[in-house]
Amino acid sequence: MFEKFQPRIPKEYEDTEFLFLANIQPTLQANVRRKMNGVRLTGCDTMNYWINGARAELAETLKLVDVLLINDTETKMLADEKNLPRAAQKVLAMGPQALVIKHGEYGATIFFREGAFGIGRHPFRAPTLPLDEVKDPTGAGDSFAGGFMGYVASQETLNREVLKRALFYGGVMGSFAVESFGTERLQSLTREEIDARFQIFRELTHLE
Amino acid sequence: MFEKFQPRIPKEYEDTEFLFLANIQPTLQANVRRKMNGVRLTGCDTMNYWINGARAELAETLKLVDVLLINDTETKMLADEKNLPRAAQKVLAMGPQALVIKHGEYGATIFFREGAFGIGRHPFRAPTLPLDEVKDPTGAGDSFAGGFMGYVASQETLNREVLKRALFYGGVMGSFAVESFGTERLQSLTREEIDARFQIFRELTHLE
Repeated sequence: MFEKFQPRIPKEYEDTEFLFLANIQPTLQANVRRKMNGVRLTGCDTMNYWINGARAELAETLKLVDVLLINDTETKMLADEKNLPRAAQKVLAMGPQALVIKHGEYGATIFFREGAFGIGRHPFRAPTLPLDEVKDPTGAGDSFAGGFMGYVASQETLNREVLKRALFYGGVMGSFAVESFGTERLQSLTREEIDARFQIFRELTHLE
Repeated sequence: MFEKFQPRIPKEYEDTEFLFLANIQPTLQANVRRKMNGVRLTGCDTMNYWINGARAELAETLKLVDVLLINDTETKMLADEKNLPRAAQKVLAMGPQALVIKHGEYGATIFFREGAFGIGRHPFRAPTLPLDEVKDPTGAGDSFAGGFMGYVASQETLNREVLKRALFYGGVMGSFAVESFGTERLQSLTREEIDARFQIFRELTHLE
C-alpha cells in the first residue's frame, strides 16, 4: 500500500529549513526528509500503530529526526520501559537530539541528548492551561507541534533556550486548539492573543 | 470508635502557628484545629475513604482549613466533577482558601480562592524531578506536605508568592523521600542539598 503512495514535494518547499513530519507511515516520513536538502531541524510525530506495527521502519526514520514529539504512552511503548525518564533516554539513543513528551493536561517535558543544542544537565517542563472546558481535543497535538516548530522557525539561532520557549508556545497553541471545534479558534487567533497566553503560561510556572 | 480516641495536644504545642492536619478521621482533625488558638495557617490532607465514608464530617472540617493538599482523584471525587479546574473551584467553595492538587510525577498545582493570599488571576504549577528510579513512594505525600508547611512556617509574611515557593519545596521534599526506603534519605538530608534541588526545580521550569 505504501509503496504506491509517494508524497511529492512542491518545488517551492524544497528549501524549507524547518520540517515537521506529521504522523504517517515511517518510511514515507523518511523519504520526505531525504528529499529536503536545506533542512536545519526536523520534527517528527508518530503513534502506537507504527511503534508496534512498523518498528524497524520507525527506527530508520528516527535516525533522521532532530526532535521527536510524542506522548507518555508512546514513549514508554517505543522504549519498552515503564519509567518515563529512563524511557526518554532510550528513545534519545535511537537518534533524536531532543524528545518532547506531551503529558496532556499536565503539560510537556523536553529531554535533551547530552550536548545537543548546547550544554545543560536537565530536562525542561512547560505547563498547559488548566481549562474549565475542553470543547474538542482533536488537533491539540498537531497544534502543539505547529506552535513548537513555528517558534523555532521564527528564531535566528537554535539552542536549548529557544527549544524551551518553543515548548511553551506548543502548549499555548494546543490550549487554543481545544477551545473550539476543529480549527475554529486558530483561524480567528491574533498574535496579541498568543503573546497574552504565553504570559499566562509564564505566570503559571515562574517564581518571582 | 472515634468517639473514644481524642488526640491530646501537648501544652508546648498549643501556641503553634502553622498546623498540618494529616490524614485521619475528619472530626478528629476538626477537634485538633479547634483546640489550637494561635494558628495562622492550617494545612489538611484527606483521602478517598473519608471523602466517600465521612463526607458530612469532612465538609465541617474543610470550613476550618486554609490549604487542602490532595491528589487529582481525590479532588474530582470530593467535587463530584471530572474536569479538574472546575473540581478545584468546587472544593474551594467548601472552605479552603487554597487547594494544592498533587499530580504525582507531573508535579502539583495550587488553586486560590479569589482574593485569598493577595491578588492574582491564575493557579500556579510546580514540577517534580523526573527520577530514573523511585525506590519507595511511601511518605511522598507527607514529605510534600512537610516541605510545603515548613517553608510557609519559615517565612515572615503569608502571600501567594510564599505559597508558590512552598509548592516548589513540597515537590523538592517529595523527590528526596522516594529516593530511599522509609525516611532514610530525609534523615541524612542537609540544607545545602535542599537548596541545590530547589535550584534544579527552578531550572526545570523557568525560562531565562
